[in-house]
Amino acid sequence: MLAARLHEYTEDMSEPLSIDEVDRPSVDVSDGIVVEVEGAGWCQTDNHIIEGMWTDYVEQTLPMTLGHENAGTVVDVGEEVNTVEEGDRVICHPVATCGTCRACRLGNDMYCEDLSFPGLTTDGGFAEYLRTNERAVIPLPGDVDPADIAPHADAGITAYHAVKKAVDELNPGDAAVVVGVGGLGHIGLQCLNAMSAADIVALDVKEAARDLASDLGARHTIDPTSEDVPSAIDDFTDGSGAQQIIDFVGADETTALGPDIAAPGADHHIVGYGGHVHEPSQTLVDGELAYRGTLVGRYTELQELVALVDRGDVELRTSRYDLSEINTVAERLEHGEIEGRAVIVP
Amino acid sequence: MLAARLHEYTEDMSEPLSIDEVDRPSVDVSDGIVVEVEGAGWCQTDNHIIEGMWTDYVEQTLPMTLGHENAGTVVDVGEEVNTVEEGDRVICHPVATCGTCRACRLGNDMYCEDLSFPGLTTDGGFAEYLRTNERAVIPLPGDVDPADIAPHADAGITAYHAVKKAVDELNPGDAAVVVGVGGLGHIGLQCLNAMSAADIVALDVKEAARDLASDLGARHTIDPTSEDVPSAIDDFTDGSGAQQIIDFVGADETTALGPDIAAPGADHHIVGYGGHVHEPSQTLVDGELAYRGTLVGRYTELQELVALVDRGDVELRTSRYDLSEINTVAERLEHGEIEGRAVIVP
Amino acid sequence: MLAARLHEYTEDMSEPLSIDEVDRPSVDVSDGIVVEVEGAGWCQTDNHIIEGMWTDYVEQTLPMTLGHENAGTVVDVGEEVNTVEEGDRVICHPVATCGTCRACRLGNDMYCEDLSFPGLTTDGGFAEYLRTNERAVIPLPGDVDPADIAPHADAGITAYHAVKKAVDELNPGDAAVVVGVGGLGHIGLQCLNAMSAADIVALDVKEAARDLASDLGARHTIDPTSEDVPSAIDDFTDGSGAQQIIDFVGADETTALGPDIAAPGADHHIVGYGGHVHEPSQTLVDGELAYRGTLVGRYTELQELVALVDRGDVELRTSRYDLSEINTVAERLEHGEIEGRAVIVP
Amino acid sequence: MLAARLHEYTEDMSEPLSIDEVDRPSVDVSDGIVVEVEGAGWCQTDNHIIEGMWTDYVEQTLPMTLGHENAGTVVDVGEEVNTVEEGDRVICHPVATCGTCRACRLGNDMYCEDLSFPGLTTDGGFAEYLRTNERAVIPLPGDVDPADIAPHADAGITAYHAVKKAVDELNPGDAAVVVGVGGLGHIGLQCLNAMSAADIVALDVKEAARDLASDLGARHTIDPTSEDVPSAIDDFTDGSGAQQIIDFVGADETTALGPDIAAPGADHHIVGYGGHVHEPSQTLVDGELAYRGTLVGRYTELQELVALVDRGDVELRTSRYDLSEINTVAERLEHGEIEGRAVIVP
Repeated sequence: MLAARLHEYTEDMSEPLSIDEVDRPSVDVSDGIVVEVEGAGWCQTDNHIIEGMWTDYVEQTLPMTLGHENAGTVVDVGEEVNTVEEGDRVICHPVATCGTCRACRLGNDMYCEDLSFPGLTTDGGFAEYLRTNERAVIPLPGDVDPADIAPHADAGITAYHAVKKAVDELNPGDAAVVVGVGGLGHIGLQCLNAMSAADIVALDVKEAARDLASDLGARHTIDPTSEDVPSAIDDFTDGSGAQQIIDFVGADETTALGPDIAAPGADHHIVGYGGHVHEPSQTLVDGELAYRGTLVGRYTELQELVALVDRGDVELRTSRYDLSEINTVAERLEHGEIEGRAVIVP
Repeated sequence: MLAARLHEYTEDMSEPLSIDEVDRPSVDVSDGIVVEVEGAGWCQTDNHIIEGMWTDYVEQTLPMTLGHENAGTVVDVGEEVNTVEEGDRVICHPVATCGTCRACRLGNDMYCEDLSFPGLTTDGGFAEYLRTNERAVIPLPGDVDPADIAPHADAGITAYHAVKKAVDELNPGDAAVVVGVGGLGHIGLQCLNAMSAADIVALDVKEAARDLASDLGARHTIDPTSEDVPSAIDDFTDGSGAQQIIDFVGADETTALGPDIAAPGADHHIVGYGGHVHEPSQTLVDGELAYRGTLVGRYTELQELVALVDRGDVELRTSRYDLSEINTVAERLEHGEIEGRAVIVP
Repeated sequence: MLAARLHEYTEDMSEPLSIDEVDRPSVDVSDGIVVEVEGAGWCQTDNHIIEGMWTDYVEQTLPMTLGHENAGTVVDVGEEVNTVEEGDRVICHPVATCGTCRACRLGNDMYCEDLSFPGLTTDGGFAEYLRTNERAVIPLPGDVDPADIAPHADAGITAYHAVKKAVDELNPGDAAVVVGVGGLGHIGLQCLNAMSAADIVALDVKEAARDLASDLGARHTIDPTSEDVPSAIDDFTDGSGAQQIIDFVGADETTALGPDIAAPGADHHIVGYGGHVHEPSQTLVDGELAYRGTLVGRYTELQELVALVDRGDVELRTSRYDLSEINTVAERLEHGEIEGRAVIVP
Repeated sequence: MLAARLHEYTEDMSEPLSIDEVDRPSVDVSDGIVVEVEGAGWCQTDNHIIEGMWTDYVEQTLPMTLGHENAGTVVDVGEEVNTVEEGDRVICHPVATCGTCRACRLGNDMYCEDLSFPGLTTDGGFAEYLRTNERAVIPLPGDVDPADIAPHADAGITAYHAVKKAVDELNPGDAAVVVGVGGLGHIGLQCLNAMSAADIVALDVKEAARDLASDLGARHTIDPTSEDVPSAIDDFTDGSGAQQIIDFVGADETTALGPDIAAPGADHHIVGYGGHVHEPSQTLVDGELAYRGTLVGRYTELQELVALVDRGDVELRTSRYDLSEINTVAERLEHGEIEGRAVIVP
């Protein structure tokens, strides 16, 4: 089968992956699953993997097929698989977990001590077929097209996971700030709207993104290139500040906003990871501010996100590309030229 | 009456305060209270106030009487005070709050929008008498000496408040790391022990502090000057990492420990505020780590801490000084020469 | 001034109250407030008070002016009132609390140890003027008519309070069952819809109520007189059961539904109080079911509900009556002939 | 091998089980485990099973080997078992769960949709060997004897699970009432003591049980046959009432205590299931009281309980019996003649 593979780390996004002919994966454990990929989302993290930015955090062996936002049809199942069968259309949680470590038992499967992460630590879904396991797949509701929902497998639950933590702290009328209305942010904003009665303020440097935010339910938008963000938040909240900040950018300038816009006791959730958090300890103490890193979500959170999609609460803006166009996608994303979310249809 | 007052900010701790004769405060509102001070703890924050380190965060008018850890006997009450009367011995929560703002209503009285903070924003307790209000005072159990319990008014509830947040996340057998076993740390450690079945690891550069930690219930102690902290924690936790870190130091070196010793999803609570938090956003994301600033606790938390003291679960190491010796205390603390907690007895 | 007063308990709702001329209340404490009543909701609890059903639970001295859902304009304030002034339009939380007991401090002001409850333990708002205190009043947003919002003072926050507890346990796609879509239920349903992405099922014996439920966002309605409720819930949830049940009726037949329709670990919230809870202990154990009584909400919850009204998330169906018509309202409600919520406009 | 089996339901405890020769179980799935039983606790629930009291709640096929509190040594493992191996000593969580249903994923494995419950729905551990699966077994710390810890497999985690819910709601100095200091109660009391700084009050009709409660950390004990429980609790709490009640009896008389001894907003946890909950809805509403059924705990909770045992925080009073004496145990327990917990050693 064909697969888009990374052979060496590079900063050059003009042709980072090569389309290779490789063996089709097969089931090798009792709960194994092979999925025929019908949609695989391209993610900013793919650019980061290509740049070698994850080598300090996980083990990777090159060449490796990228692609960690996968959906398609089950074509092969291990002999003890009970919950899906051949022909079922599924979305794949990005990690195939063990189910027996304490993290999995607690429901924190993204902390699994014995996981494989297709597209990050093993071969992923920019290919005709993908190997995963029963613990990773979620059947799709009746009429959902796998290519339409694939990006939720990672972008979606990452946004959802951050929002769910924020929602736990939000009361009706509280202000929630969404920083960055891109691939993740526009999903997060919709989740926030569906799951809370907070008043949402969206920040983005692009006018189109701010317009999208308004369409999706933001009460107010701010252009940080032309407005003073702290005074805009101060006006919007009558001086109270924002109870929750969800930072889909994570750059030096966005993490620095926290102390200036946060209500006492607020959380600044770090989802994007372009820069650093750098503050005096006293600043965190004085406002009882928290910087909370947030990772991909749980399997059960992907179930909940699929329910939101099925209810019509979350819509995804996607554009489709053939496997042969994959390097074009890498380059365009690097230059901020992808609207919504790019999906590879192998 | 006599009061120890700060006239100008200074880095020089040889004689920062002067003992002045000032008017005795009186009750001027219906819920006003005047307390005859019998114990007023000296706090690292007093040194920071003297250095001018709080001018960016709160409004201060000099000269000002310092002292925010106060206990004594009620000598005057406003006409609508119902819960205490003259002659009652009380400990004073450090802030006199309004009771009508949303923060007070929610129980987050330390975020009160209209508070006065004796010793930080108005005259404090290094004096014979202190003015506060009914919302700040807690009657003492039968035989507790105000001078013995005074430091709990700030050091105590600050430690307790941080520990209470940590305890919410700790299960039996989880590892909790206490960084710094000084004035706050040795209280926090005892609270942790009383309120959870976590396995406590204490870090301190001083041998005496580590010995104290062992006496107070730490399962393991680490000397960061001679041991590699991450591998010591790794050994102690069989590779799992610490579920909660309570950092009573907040220096650059201690905040940097978080990513190397934390279990996935852990919190690094910032209580002390000597230095900075400085980490790549990706590091917070990868381990889903949170840096959570933590301020003084709530009035109700001081009630709970008084209950812990009354149960015999928390003991305070104190040494007493006369008001005339106050500058000696300032200097000794600066040089780390105070064992336990210094209490001024005016 | 005129006031509608109860002189003796009675089961007969034809003329339970008399319209008396009484003294206008005045401010007698530093945080006292007198409100000119512009709207006072009639509540099922008023019928229960008339019947003497509350004498076992609280102290009452007759004659007493009823009316605990009040809104109007501040006409007199105590000398230390800071947060409102004469001329402000306000909604009144039903209890005037002390602000100094531990319950108030914790934010659980409805458990205040020293409260007065106008209309239940002291004179209420079926009168031209009402005495309450600063801790009870919430300023209204710009253009809200007091008579339109008055019922939220009790019916509203009671429903909101129950819903907020339920929302904490609800994930997107979970089933939430609303039992009874009357005065409280139709508010609760809208709150549930605004604050969660649960799939709402509404039960009511009246077709008009079920239609209203559908209009307000219920995904499914059930007529318990013609349908088998457990199998209807079973169908709707694919056999999973309901994660949360909010029972605005509290009759024997509705409390008995819990074990037959609840998912494991679910809560059956008791808001209405017509009948009994009667189940074998084993039934609670087997399904880990909880019956949770729920009282009027907190002051801060009324703030949040006002925010929901201001956002347009909650609409109230009301009909207005003159003070002289008050006994007609009592009788009509007893016969289930009031649509939405009756408001007395003195 | 020999196994103690129930052939028909009976109220007569003189000889309810027969010791039969049956086939030794074998591993039949990839995660299957066979354990050589070295300790199997006898539980009040075994008496209830014999009486047929569970037939309305679960499916049972007779004859069936009873015994759901099992510990021993792994003697056979399925081919994909990774976390234990032959020779490991383990305690068995009472249910063998699927790991793929939503309940298992959420960590609520006791709600597993596809579980087997040895000793309740399939053959249990009153036998030489027991079949379970990898998801059910927890390795024992170094020197713990399986026969000493076996009762924790069900009695222990049931008590722990209830206590853990209570601890979430308890602050230092709050009153927690333990109703019944028998097999479960004496474990629960120790867990409460280790995990909170609540003031524990224990109720039991037996003097020996009350003495044990005092030894294990209760601050106060009450004999309900000679004392008025509500006034005793009122005295102990200065009129505040108990914040949490953990009812290990669940009889009509004990569930009726809730409204008379509970603080506002308290929970009455139902663990034992001898009788009924029967209260007016209004009583639950007025005090915002909850009756919360509580089932066996989670796998991860059994891990936490094993940690408590390993820390020395929880001791179990056990007496050992040979398999041939099993009917004697059944009869003695029925007459309340077993001290602590009986363990069958096959």
